[in-house]
Amino acid sequence: MDIQDTRELHLKDLQLPQDLKKLNLYQCRRLAREIRTTLVRTISHNGGHLASNLGTVELTLALHRVFDSPHDKFIWDVGHQCYTHKLLTGRLEEFSHIRQEGGISGFPKPDESPHDVVISGHSSTSISAACGIAEAMRMQGDDHQVIAIIGDGALTGGLAFEGLNNGGKKKLKNLIVVLNDNNMSISGNVGALSGYLRSIREREDYVRRKQELEGNLRNTPVVGAPTIKVLKKTKDSVKRMVIRHATLFEQLGFVYLGPVDGHDQQALEEVLRAAKRYDAPVFVHIKTIKGKGYLPAEKDPSKFHGVSKFDIMTGNPEISGDDCYSAEFGKELTRMADEDARICAITAAMEYGTGLQYFEAAHPDRFYDVGIAEQHAVTFAAGLAAAGMLPVFAVYSTFLQRSFDQLIHDVAISGLHVTLGIDRAGYVGEDGETHHGVFDIPMLTAVPGAVVYAPAGYEELRMCLRRAVFHEKGLAAVRYPRGKEQDMQLPPEFINTEHTYIDGGSDVLLISYGRTFRALLDAHETCARIGYRTDLLKLTRIFPLDETLVEQALDHRVIIFFEESSGNGSIASLFGSLLPQYGFHGRYVQVTAEGFMKQGTMSSLLDKAGLSAQSVCRYIYVYGTKS
Amino acid sequence: MDIQDTRELHLKDLQLPQDLKKLNLYQCRRLAREIRTTLVRTISHNGGHLASNLGTVELTLALHRVFDSPHDKFIWDVGHQCYTHKLLTGRLEEFSHIRQEGGISGFPKPDESPHDVVISGHSSTSISAACGIAEAMRMQGDDHQVIAIIGDGALTGGLAFEGLNNGGKKKLKNLIVVLNDNNMSISGNVGALSGYLRSIREREDYVRRKQELEGNLRNTPVVGAPTIKVLKKTKDSVKRMVIRHATLFEQLGFVYLGPVDGHDQQALEEVLRAAKRYDAPVFVHIKTIKGKGYLPAEKDPSKFHGVSKFDIMTGNPEISGDDCYSAEFGKELTRMADEDARICAITAAMEYGTGLQYFEAAHPDRFYDVGIAEQHAVTFAAGLAAAGMLPVFAVYSTFLQRSFDQLIHDVAISGLHVTLGIDRAGYVGEDGETHHGVFDIPMLTAVPGAVVYAPAGYEELRMCLRRAVFHEKGLAAVRYPRGKEQDMQLPPEFINTEHTYIDGGSDVLLISYGRTFRALLDAHETCARIGYRTDLLKLTRIFPLDETLVEQALDHRVIIFFEESSGNGSIASLFGSLLPQYGFHGRYVQVTAEGFMKQGTMSSLLDKAGLSAQSVCRYIYVYGTKS
Repeated sequence: MDIQDTRELHLKDLQLPQDLKKLNLYQCRRLAREIRTTLVRTISHNGGHLASNLGTVELTLALHRVFDSPHDKFIWDVGHQCYTHKLLTGRLEEFSHIRQEGGISGFPKPDESPHDVVISGHSSTSISAACGIAEAMRMQGDDHQVIAIIGDGALTGGLAFEGLNNGGKKKLKNLIVVLNDNNMSISGNVGALSGYLRSIREREDYVRRKQELEGNLRNTPVVGAPTIKVLKKTKDSVKRMVIRHATLFEQLGFVYLGPVDGHDQQALEEVLRAAKRYDAPVFVHIKTIKGKGYLPAEKDPSKFHGVSKFDIMTGNPEISGDDCYSAEFGKELTRMADEDARICAITAAMEYGTGLQYFEAAHPDRFYDVGIAEQHAVTFAAGLAAAGMLPVFAVYSTFLQRSFDQLIHDVAISGLHVTLGIDRAGYVGEDGETHHGVFDIPMLTAVPGAVVYAPAGYEELRMCLRRAVFHEKGLAAVRYPRGKEQDMQLPPEFINTEHTYIDGGSDVLLISYGRTFRALLDAHETCARIGYRTDLLKLTRIFPLDETLVEQALDHRVIIFFEESSGNGSIASLFGSLLPQYGFHGRYVQVTAEGFMKQGTMSSLLDKAGLSAQSVCRYIYVYGTKS
Repeated sequence: MDIQDTRELHLKDLQLPQDLKKLNLYQCRRLAREIRTTLVRTISHNGGHLASNLGTVELTLALHRVFDSPHDKFIWDVGHQCYTHKLLTGRLEEFSHIRQEGGISGFPKPDESPHDVVISGHSSTSISAACGIAEAMRMQGDDHQVIAIIGDGALTGGLAFEGLNNGGKKKLKNLIVVLNDNNMSISGNVGALSGYLRSIREREDYVRRKQELEGNLRNTPVVGAPTIKVLKKTKDSVKRMVIRHATLFEQLGFVYLGPVDGHDQQALEEVLRAAKRYDAPVFVHIKTIKGKGYLPAEKDPSKFHGVSKFDIMTGNPEISGDDCYSAEFGKELTRMADEDARICAITAAMEYGTGLQYFEAAHPDRFYDVGIAEQHAVTFAAGLAAAGMLPVFAVYSTFLQRSFDQLIHDVAISGLHVTLGIDRAGYVGEDGETHHGVFDIPMLTAVPGAVVYAPAGYEELRMCLRRAVFHEKGLAAVRYPRGKEQDMQLPPEFINTEHTYIDGGSDVLLISYGRTFRALLDAHETCARIGYRTDLLKLTRIFPLDETLVEQALDHRVIIFFEESSGNGSIASLFGSLLPQYGFHGRYVQVTAEGFMKQGTMSSLLDKAGLSAQSVCRYIYVYGTKS
């Protein structure tokens, strides 16, 4: 197309990303509008990370105009804000299927595009990964740039600090860290660092001041160009004045540039071009508004961090946020804290995601949002417990992976009583392989003395939480899935905190827990109607495994354990390994959640893993006998 | 005793810690000398952390003189430097048995003494734990102080940063962080932070300057006391001048005091008393000399970080440092790097511990000491791998626990080829429960796509390392124990990178790998002599488990799997769970390293766990039949 024809400029007509460099600033602004419309339209339909993507439209345009991806490498921290990057790197057509099964991922994925350098879905990894890539490029004689783009929330994670500490020292000349500072993280930002960043943000923006000056001069005929040159020479001293205060990043070895308005296309490009020229690691500080350009998201960006489908006009989500395991957990914990002053609640930047907003409202003094710092959360909880409190850390299963050492070293060796509320346990659907909660069971079964409950519905969740906090000792976890109870409710005989055995008069025993048990019960009933009988064992306190249950199971011809967890180290694996120790002579079948599962609808993922009612039926037909 | 009698002052005559407050500075110095003598004498005999303990004698005395333990709480980061604290809190008699079986631990242990607040053996946890305790005390109306004592090395860990970020913000008025800055960490310090600390250290020490002034005045008769009072008033402005530069800790919300000479008893006590008076979290920066007072350790503190027994006069260790798995690993990796320019070596502050000093000498450009930052080490390695290098991260098994999420999220999902050299796998002996390497197998078997080798001797280690780096894809680990091969050498038929099956014509099959296999082989031979025959299976590439081996094992009456690993998620557990899936009808016995084992000699620990040749024999007598 003719890039000069500004009225008709559309993403679909451009060769991307290379055509971006040909655009003028007016055209960039038009494109930014189109991108924002596309983002709101698509995310309202597919769900996803809205606010963070709306905030980085100009930044992403600037990056692609100043640098040469894929030769220059963009590393998007957490990956929440990579949608514009996907639109600008040949994935416009696929974009309407983002986060859907078979569609493109909501996170950067090297197998999708050479422009996606590393997978990212967890926070605070970008600087460390960028250090590795930059160092490799140095050794290979490649002098392209590596640019890590990280939010102020992700900067609260210890890994980001480790990355800065090493990146600054190694004199990585081609490393640029762009801090996308929206003063938000996921919920409102926490920790002393956010106060520090605020103090920098509130200072005059040296780049803008300089540009306003230049702009005025340009509008003055004749004088213009030469004067600007003189001004450029003074730039360094102005900058030195500004960065003298920014010691944290400077002292960690970086050249500090900023802060710059992250929605001012010209200022952004200028600061990135300046960063490119330095023969040293550079830290570029830009200020953005999360949710920029979509009023409901600007007004309440936390609500639009990770969203399900929503109504474009009102911004209201299609499903109610109150009917979910997280909310049930948060409300029950709040009630328990009403009764017992020792209970404290901790979240790592996921107050709303974990349903702790109820707790904060009622007991602000005992509520702790520690930032994206899962390691600290656990060791902090250990400290609270050592001093006699009853700390409960509410955390997504996938992010608890950050705390493995702290669970062992700071909690379990001392036998301190710390309770975990493990949210998003099992498959999570559209967020895909970086977010499925399928490793918490192997992690916890490796921790000596740990106790794990896996409730199958809201009522059991409440019962298990009370038992874990008030009756257990040491490390106690309650794990529950993302989303709603829906039709998972069980008949009263199954609702308890231990286990339930149903003798169906069969030589085939089916075992499971949590939401998977609903599939077993449905299959049990379906198959019974056509003459395939099964016995059922539902676990609630899944670990340590009650070995009398293994003994009771021995006289079955076939035992099938269904579990929404990675297999090695799972309860199914433990049960299986005990069977031959107890002298079992039948056949054992283990159906677990293997490998890294791409995004998809919950029902499809469960079906693929063999954990849906339909797949349970198939196992019954294969291993059962018709009576 | 009469505290006034300075000549006869000895630790054994004091009521500790309370009598410490009655001593004058001269007596403190005498006591410091006695403590140092005791430390060198005991550690030369028992092994332990010498240099760090010699560096903190005055600090520990000052802490106990200024604060009231156990009401005030001391949290010793890593715990390496708690020996003087143990001597001063009623453990003088037990001290000669420190780190020995049945003796006191080399790390803080609450069940040993009310003066030990939390267990610590891993780095960078103290600030987070102190935050929890301080916050609990605030809620309980207890206004005693919580003092975290952390080294500059431990400060490079991300968890320490997370702790500072939260501790500074929470306005924990009773939190004091003492930075014991010896400019060393474990090997020489690394990262940009160490440069920053050096820049502070090199500044004038305001406390000392003030004191020198006071000292001069005191020596001038008459003028003395009143003038000193006036000077005290000026202190605040002097201090403000100094701390204006220390923005990193200040910006994280702390009052910064220091730097202070950590061997000047008076200066130390003055700064700690000042810290006590603030109604805000305080960061006290003290400078110490690692190894202080023992020349061989002052000259080469790295060598005396964690030591085995050594000769007091020369400082020479009793065993050679060259004959061990770590050195074999380091030398072979260096040879591989000679051949292949893509190989990079990474350590997290354990260059000597992991044998990488050979690599650094030969290939300094491809050697990375990232500080105590195991998370960064793995994500950095992932970055190197993504850009085509062959990174190898050498790490102690117990510290790899810090990297669980990074192994999954940054390495395994993308299938990046990162190799782990897992040192100190299995029991480590005297360091006890915080340091045993018994969780790496459960951790790695939970990572989809991981490959694990467990060589049984030096030759196999070299073979496995080459296979892991040059032939495997994705995450590949080689794990090997602490110490020497000794008499673990195996006959040639057992040395390979896959597995070896020995048909002893028996219905009892014994399975193991690594150093444990040597015990099996010995037991196999011993028992054969008295008519108990056994079949043997030795694994080298232990994961993923070759399922044909399970099929081959099915016709045995009894299978016993011995494994020096925590049981759940172990290879034994995996093997056991596969047996009933393949239709095994015999009896399975799993012998693994359960729970948290206290310190002891290696042979005693292995015997307790049932993993010595003698205990293997006992299993053979119980389950075997005499022919």
